Parts: sequence; C-alpha cells; structure tokens
Amino acid sequence: MALSIQPYKGTRDFYPEDMRLRKWMFDKWREVCESFGYEEYDGPVLEPLELFTAKTSEEIVDDQSYSFTDRGERKVIMRPEMTPTVSRMVAARRQELAYPARLYSIANFFRYERPQKGRLREFWQLNADIFGIEGVEADVEIIQLADALMKSFGSKEGSYEIRLNSRVLLDNKINAAEPKVEIDKIIRLIDGFEKMDELEFKAKLTEAVNKPNDLYQFLMDDRETEATKEIIEKCASLGVKVIPKNSLARGFDYYTDIVFEVFDTNDENNRSLFGGGRYDGLVGLFGVEPVPTVGFGMGDVTLQNFLQTNNLIPELKNTTDLVLATVGDVFTEANKLASGLREKGLNVSLDASDRKLDKKIKAADKQGVKYVLFVGEAELKVQKFNLKNLQTGIENQVPLSKINKTLLA
Amino acid sequence: MALSIQPYKGTRDFYPEDMRLRKWMFDKWREVCESFGYEEYDGPVLEPLELFTAKTSEEIVDDQSYSFTDRGERKVIMRPEMTPTVSRMVAARRQELAYPARLYSIANFFRYERPQKGRLREFWQLNADIFGIEGVEADVEIIQLADALMKSFGSKEGSYEIRLNSRVLLDNKINAAEPKVEIDKIIRLIDGFEKMDELEFKAKLTEAVNKPNDLYQFLMDDRETEATKEIIEKCASLGVKVIPKNSLARGFDYYTDIVFEVFDTNDENNRSLFGGGRYDGLVGLFGVEPVPTVGFGMGDVTLQNFLQTNNLIPELKNTTDLVLATVGDVFTEANKLASGLREKGLNVSLDASDRKLDKKIKAADKQGVKYVLFVGEAELKVQKFNLKNLQTGIENQVPLSKINKTLLA
Repeated sequence: MALSIQPYKGTRDFYPEDMRLRKWMFDKWREVCESFGYEEYDGPVLEPLELFTAKTSEEIVDDQSYSFTDRGERKVIMRPEMTPTVSRMVAARRQELAYPARLYSIANFFRYERPQKGRLREFWQLNADIFGIEGVEADVEIIQLADALMKSFGSKEGSYEIRLNSRVLLDNKINAAEPKVEIDKIIRLIDGFEKMDELEFKAKLTEAVNKPNDLYQFLMDDRETEATKEIIEKCASLGVKVIPKNSLARGFDYYTDIVFEVFDTNDENNRSLFGGGRYDGLVGLFGVEPVPTVGFGMGDVTLQNFLQTNNLIPELKNTTDLVLATVGDVFTEANKLASGLREKGLNVSLDASDRKLDKKIKAADKQGVKYVLFVGEAELKVQKFNLKNLQTGIENQVPLSKINKTLLA
Repeated sequence: MALSIQPYKGTRDFYPEDMRLRKWMFDKWREVCESFGYEEYDGPVLEPLELFTAKTSEEIVDDQSYSFTDRGERKVIMRPEMTPTVSRMVAARRQELAYPARLYSIANFFRYERPQKGRLREFWQLNADIFGIEGVEADVEIIQLADALMKSFGSKEGSYEIRLNSRVLLDNKINAAEPKVEIDKIIRLIDGFEKMDELEFKAKLTEAVNKPNDLYQFLMDDRETEATKEIIEKCASLGVKVIPKNSLARGFDYYTDIVFEVFDTNDENNRSLFGGGRYDGLVGLFGVEPVPTVGFGMGDVTLQNFLQTNNLIPELKNTTDLVLATVGDVFTEANKLASGLREKGLNVSLDASDRKLDKKIKAADKQGVKYVLFVGEAELKVQKFNLKNLQTGIENQVPLSKINKTLLA
C-alpha cells in the first residue's frame, strides 16, 4: 500500500511559497525585536515533563500536551510554550547575565488540540521577555514592543486594541468571593468570557460563587485602576493606546501582576491575537533568587489570519534571480557562467537538461522566477546573451558584464 | 524541591552568544543554497511513524527514534531526518511542481543516542535536494553545492576531501557474494569501516561471507569506475576535486545510485562531516510516478566542530548598536529619542532604571554592546549627547543628528 502524502493532523508542510510568507513574518519579528535591543535565543523542543507541570496551565499539560516516556524512562514533553524554558535558562545563568536582559525567540510549539481556525497542533511563536526590571518601565516597553510589531506589519489604527488588567486586583477580588473557590478555575472561566454570551457567563459564575453579581460588576467595570493607570498614561505619552479591561485574565498560572492582550476588533474575527504579562516568580522556582520578568508570546497562525483578513500580505518573490537555460551541450561553460554571476551576488539556477527551450521557460515561470538567460555556443563565443523577462515577455540581448542585481531587480 | 536548570540530556540551550554562531552558520547555508537557485521549505516535526519505517535506516527507527502513540492512538515519530518528509511533500504535489525543483531546508532532528562528540539528541541539519533530473548534471551540481558550502566558511584546500561511490556497483558486488547475505547488514558493516581498523573489519567480513577477500579487494580498490568517472571529470572541470572510494556506503536504505561524502582530513578528527546521494525511488513510494532525486544533509554539530578545529569562526557581535542610559527622570523623552534612532535603522535598547551610571555601563559591556549614549535633562535640552565607545573607552559629545549606522559601525 502506498504511503500517505498527508502531513500529520494539525501540522503544516511549508512549500516554498508558504515558506516565503513565514520568512517574511519572522524577519519582521526579528527586525522589530532587535531594534528594541532584544537578542535571539532558543531552547530544546524536548523538556523534562516536570518543568511544565510546575507552573503552566493545567489544561495544557494534562489534556493537550505531547508528553511521553523516553527510552531511558525519563518523562518528557514536547514544549507547549516557551516561558518555562526561558525561565530555566535565565535561572541557570542567574549570576552571569547582565540586566536588564532582553531576550526573544522564534520557535515551534506542540499542543494536542482539535485543529480549528487559529489553532494547530504545531505552531510557531515569537516570545519576547525582559528580565530584571521591577518597575513599570518594563511593562510599558513590552506593550510598546507589541504595538510596534503590529504596526510593522502595516496594521491600521483601530484594527486592533491593546487591553490591560492587573492579576493582583482580579485575584484579590476572586479570593474575596464566597464560598472560597479555586482561583485557577475562575480564572479559566473568565479567560473564556469573550467566547460566551453574557447570560451563559453569568450562569457559570452563579454556579461557582454565592454572590456572582459582585464579581460580575467588577469584571464589567472597565475603568483605570491604581494598578493600570501609570502604565496606560506612560503608554499614551509614547503614542500607544491601552484600554483597561477588568475581565482580562490570560490563562497561564504564572502571571503575578499585569496582563495584557492585543485584540482583533474586526467584527467577524473578534478574538485575542496574542498577549502576555508579568511573571516575577518563575525564575525563582529553580532555587535561585527570583528575577522580575514581563513578556509575551505572538503566534504565527493567528497573526497570519489577521494579516490575511486585513489584506496586509504583500506579493512575495522567489529568491532566485535568474534561470540559466542551456541550448546544446554547454554544461561546463554554462556552469562556469553561473558561478561568475553568483560571485556578483546573483541567485542563479541552471537548467542544463535537454528539454526544449519552451519547457525550460515554462518551468522557470511556474517557479516564479522573473528572468531566463539563454546560453548556447554562439552566445558564449560573443559573451552576449538573450535575457527574457517572463513577466513582460520582453527579450533583449545583453553583454555578460551588464547582468547584475540592478538589471534584474 | 527546586526544578532542574539543566536542559534535557543531549539537547542544547542556545543563549544569545550560541545563537549568534548558529545564525551565522544558518545564514551562510541559506546564502549559498539560494545562490544556486534552491528555495527553502519546511515540514512538521511530528510525522506518522510508517513514513520512516518504510525506508529510513532500520537502526535509526528501531533503536534511536523518539516515537510514541498520541492521544488519538496514532503512532508518531519526531523526525530523525528530512528525506522521507521532503519526498512525501514532492509526491503530494507531483503534478503541480515545476522541474527541476531545487529545495533546501534548515530543520531540527531527534535521535535517541548516547550523547558524544558530534552526536546529540537534538541537532540541526541543512538538507538540499534536486528533483527531476536523471542525468549526472544533478549529481555534479549537488557535489558542487556541497563544496561551495565548505568554501563559503573559509575551509582551506586539503582540510576536507569529497569521496564518491556508486551503490549500484557496491550492491552488485555484495549480491554476488556467497552465501547470500542481507545486503543492509553488509552495508552497515561497510558504513562503519572508517571507525574500525583493518583487522577488525576483515574479521567481521569473514564472519559474514565465504570469500571475504574478493569483497575486501574490491572495497580497497579506489579507482574510478564507469559509474563515477563522468561525475569526477565534470566536477574537476569545475574546480571541484572528487576522489573515488569503493568502500563508501552511507547508512540509509534508500540510496539507489551514487553516494558521496565530505570527509575531514584532519588527523585528529578523521571522520565523515556529511554526505548524501541519489535516491530515485523514494517519491514513488507514495503511489505516484517516481522522481529522480539527489541530495544531502549537513549537520550543525559536526560542522561546528570542524569550524572550531580549523579556527574558522569569526568574532560575532551583539545585534544591539547602542544602549541609551538615562540620567534622572527622563523615561518618556529618552524613549522618544530611542524611537527616533530606531527609525534611522539603529538597534537601541533603553536602560531607564535608577541604577548608577557605572552599573549601566558595566551591564552594556557585559552584553557585548559597543556604544552607550547618556541621556539627561541637560543633554535633551541642547540635543547633544555623550557617546561612549566601550571597546576604546573614548567618550565624545555628538549632536543627535550625527548618530547613525556609520558612526556606530
């Protein structure tokens, strides 16, 4: 029986045209993060399971993780998110690192989920974190960075909003509820708030606590609080609009202070694009002095959906500048010609097959290459070659010396 | 109990300085592959197990794979190599792709091995393959590309050699042996030849076949054969030296014709750096017309060892051009200044903490940033700032308008 050509459920094959889009997104991520002084790092795909049972969301580890026992009886997990890994890495060099340490990574993550819009089993995520700053400067900077990322893709004002809350305030409110409830449970309930209608949410809240109205009122009251005021003002002074949102929780158990999210305001796609917050306690779990930390993660699948909906993806070209198509038996000469052009910085592929020229042209065109250069014995003799622009159909004879980046732009 | 700060055995944390090296290697891989007209692709980390049991080396799948059953009872494997995945991807678009299709990827792979020099449980690999060419032009090009990659890192002539063999010839020779032996077993034995001394190898060969001398003589006779002559000559005409090597096998079961490897000639590190070959049959396993294919994989761990031994790794700098250190309470103004410099294309990090200036300078220096700019109220007023070069210790006052890429180079 023939093998299946399908990728594993919930994962993607990236063909060159998909890869161009991915690279374009990742390059922007890199450019913006590095412009803020963030340096790239990476960690392993496999981690000891206990690293994630300690502090990640219970739902992710228990129900959605790819975890298994290795051949040496160690329990391992394919990373479902980056925060525990980067905290481990910072803890391991607690003394050696210089602070503030600004770190970013672009890595793939794995969650066993029912594949659906915006959710896949393997996805990529930008993670950006700043370590070593207790003050709101770090909160402001990380929100500013999130905003700069959105703007770098050409997002229009009003197409997204940035929402801010304090987990301290929210957690206190929940802790004051009667009867005593499991805070994580309520947080997850609140985290799902945007996806429910008000009646459903209120019903669930009523099941959980005795006086749901108090909590409900609090969650609905989107005014600045003492905890969010300074950040909102400082962001405003830097041209970044931030909205207070008392019902914002973010699902992870490790947040200790502010949480924020970037929300898609499009009516047909009302959802959280990405978010983050402050998690001052995580590095301390590794037996070292804690380090104040704030950061966020931005996924490629939701971002790509947003960019598509908002028509923000440009036409992306093949990286190959030129196909060199041979006429007759000139393999070695054509190959040397290609090497010479590569030394000039051109990306040149060689089609030295004995197919007919129109087949070679068709193939180059199908691959999205713009130019074909024809190389036969006669051309090699005079060092002048016919160059065809496949987009316009125009063909010109050009001397070898004139073929360069500018001509082929 | 505190969580462990160690990464999972056989995997690596890439801190910024490790990442700089990795990026430098990957960027060179990309640059050279794209200069030959190869386009980047990627596939999923997880694949159905049967994709790899079909044709990869038995040793890898049975003894070294990370394979497990997912929550939906599917048997999956964390990819131990790329060839089956890219073959699957080409098969899935057999009709739509234009040929020759030149594809490359830079991806991570997983093998449960005893970690040792040059071998880790998670490693990265460049894979480059050309699909759709039956003739030796493809074999020549792929060897030429391997050589160009080695040269792009500054490898000196003679520090490596390129070895070539034909699996057709070798397999015929083994098939002619008495008694009939399992060809895969002998291939694996031959594959380990470089790591044994001659006596040990001969002894093992004697265990396996009746007339070991015939086979041994053949394996030792490193002359060009009909199958390798044309490739060796064509490569020579392009300035690429290739050596015939009858004992070269390469471990994978899918090779159908030529195999080659790049071998480290350093006496203290005599080993195969990487290699590849022709595998015309693999795409056909997916129920489509087969596609002639030749390619190779080049690992990051062995390459890095080679580059280190040969002193080929340059000093790699932090991507941050400038740390902007505040004096006094000028967070918003300094932040706006940083934004302005970023718009000029500079990578600027802001240190707005209330630490003493010498602490801020020390931190910037430790992170490998070359310049610090001091920003206080007085400086903001006159728009002139003191700029300190941390490498020379020299400090100058410069007007804001003069601060650009050239000044900070």
